[in-house]
Amino acid sequence: MIRVGIDIGGTGIQVGVVNQQYHIVAEESIVTNTSIPFEEQIVNIADCVKSTVSNSGFSLDQIDSVGIGIPGMASKKTGEIINCTNMGWHHVPFREEFIRHISKPVYIENDANVAALAESVAGISAGTSSSVFITIGTGIGSGIIINNRIWNGAHGIGGELGHVIFDLNGIPCTCGNHGCLERYCSATALIRMGREAASSNPNSGLMKSVNNDLSRIEAKTVIDCAKNGDPLAKSIFRTFIRYLSQAIASVVNLIDPEVIVLGGGVSKAGDFLIKPILEEYPQYVVFRDQEIPPVKLAVLGSKAGIIGAAMLN
Amino acid sequence: MIRVGIDIGGTGIQVGVVNQQYHIVAEESIVTNTSIPFEEQIVNIADCVKSTVSNSGFSLDQIDSVGIGIPGMASKKTGEIINCTNMGWHHVPFREEFIRHISKPVYIENDANVAALAESVAGISAGTSSSVFITIGTGIGSGIIINNRIWNGAHGIGGELGHVIFDLNGIPCTCGNHGCLERYCSATALIRMGREAASSNPNSGLMKSVNNDLSRIEAKTVIDCAKNGDPLAKSIFRTFIRYLSQAIASVVNLIDPEVIVLGGGVSKAGDFLIKPILEEYPQYVVFRDQEIPPVKLAVLGSKAGIIGAAMLN
Repeated sequence: MIRVGIDIGGTGIQVGVVNQQYHIVAEESIVTNTSIPFEEQIVNIADCVKSTVSNSGFSLDQIDSVGIGIPGMASKKTGEIINCTNMGWHHVPFREEFIRHISKPVYIENDANVAALAESVAGISAGTSSSVFITIGTGIGSGIIINNRIWNGAHGIGGELGHVIFDLNGIPCTCGNHGCLERYCSATALIRMGREAASSNPNSGLMKSVNNDLSRIEAKTVIDCAKNGDPLAKSIFRTFIRYLSQAIASVVNLIDPEVIVLGGGVSKAGDFLIKPILEEYPQYVVFRDQEIPPVKLAVLGSKAGIIGAAMLN
Repeated sequence: MIRVGIDIGGTGIQVGVVNQQYHIVAEESIVTNTSIPFEEQIVNIADCVKSTVSNSGFSLDQIDSVGIGIPGMASKKTGEIINCTNMGWHHVPFREEFIRHISKPVYIENDANVAALAESVAGISAGTSSSVFITIGTGIGSGIIINNRIWNGAHGIGGELGHVIFDLNGIPCTCGNHGCLERYCSATALIRMGREAASSNPNSGLMKSVNNDLSRIEAKTVIDCAKNGDPLAKSIFRTFIRYLSQAIASVVNLIDPEVIVLGGGVSKAGDFLIKPILEEYPQYVVFRDQEIPPVKLAVLGSKAGIIGAAMLN
């Protein structure tokens, strides 16, 4: 099975041809152009697919399917992309339009689900039949794999761990509610906590590391300062670890997958993130005296988008 | 397929023979006796099964399987009941012992999962392939059905919605953690809220309804007073509805089943409970502009235990 995976990202569109061993054998990209009608955008994507396939050594005839991962929502039934802000798409009949140019089965999925699938077939959770992938970035994304398949709900609106209520009457969220989990567990949360703490601690190592410019505190700043032993940054990071541990335990108490996989920007902290989570999270699990899921770092990085999209079916 | 379902409850053990149409054709019960060794308890249960089958008009040969629902945890693999406090069982090799007396396939499940299965095959969610059953009683139990099967996790520790973190730094829970969902959404929570409010409002209708005896305020007291228009009870009940709505929305944001089913003691409030939830819960769903799951009342009541246990496989 030779398949094409398309990964719609923030600034560009990655196209890859993926072989049976889940290796990307050819890869090309185009930049996002939101100033042209979607029909033209789709022509450009289809042209890029044709070019990538042609450079892969395979022919278009040998391609079994085309999958596309989007930061947004699509209808599996109709192939319509309901929304994909990066592309400026709202209710775009993607599949209908795309198959005018390339007549293959076309599958569309949310990008967190795609990454979850990629890790579960070709990454850190390969060999498991259930997993929950949590991507810790600007927000919290998640993808649930059950019985080797993406579970995004009966109406396609599930997998939104970031918007599970985590703190009644808590911080307002972009979704319009209060206390959503991603307000506490995302890079954005770490930045907020860092800036708040630094502003009340002008002599901290954290504040000095940005030359007293609060706006320069990013998630990485807090993590780096914590690594370097700054007491303020360490204390913020400990709180962040507690939140993440409680979030992971909530997933385990409810879903209990074979493995929990962490990805996204913050996961680049590696062992510095994963080790304290592994120590702390079991205490929040109800049945902590039983075997509980391990927590592991994603390994496919930016390739997960193409590989997972190609695996869609 | 004629099957036996056994429902281990608080005070007694119900045994039923269930036919292909999911009807209980014969039913008997025995009282729980925790003062005898588990081997003898199991002999008593097996004898009750034999007697029930004999009175059902079927022969033991015609029975395909025996299922048992327990308020506790079991290992599907080994058939061991890890804990079942009502029976005084800890690490009891139930299946191994039971088949000495009745040689049939024996399946063991947690009672919330059993009730979820029962409703999904023979109750309010019949015909759906995914559902989440939430039982609102002393605690919050839950059972997840995905692709027509109980999903209780890769390690058998999932389905514990009651212990998802709902309020960071919130009320201490019996599980040892803080802010678990069941501290806000159970009958116990409604009682606590009622007693707290009544104690600071001695002239309220709620307080008068129990002749100033706080300890007599039960969940039903608050609900009845709210129905009768007592402003204090109405306000407590509104808060409780908000919590439940946020809990249901969290389940939808993460799992998005075809339908949410409410059971347990508090669900006896019927429309008085379900109508305000249906009005309020959508606002906490991220994709509230899409189709979202309906919320329905369980219909099998106490029969769910036997019917669901019989359906196990």
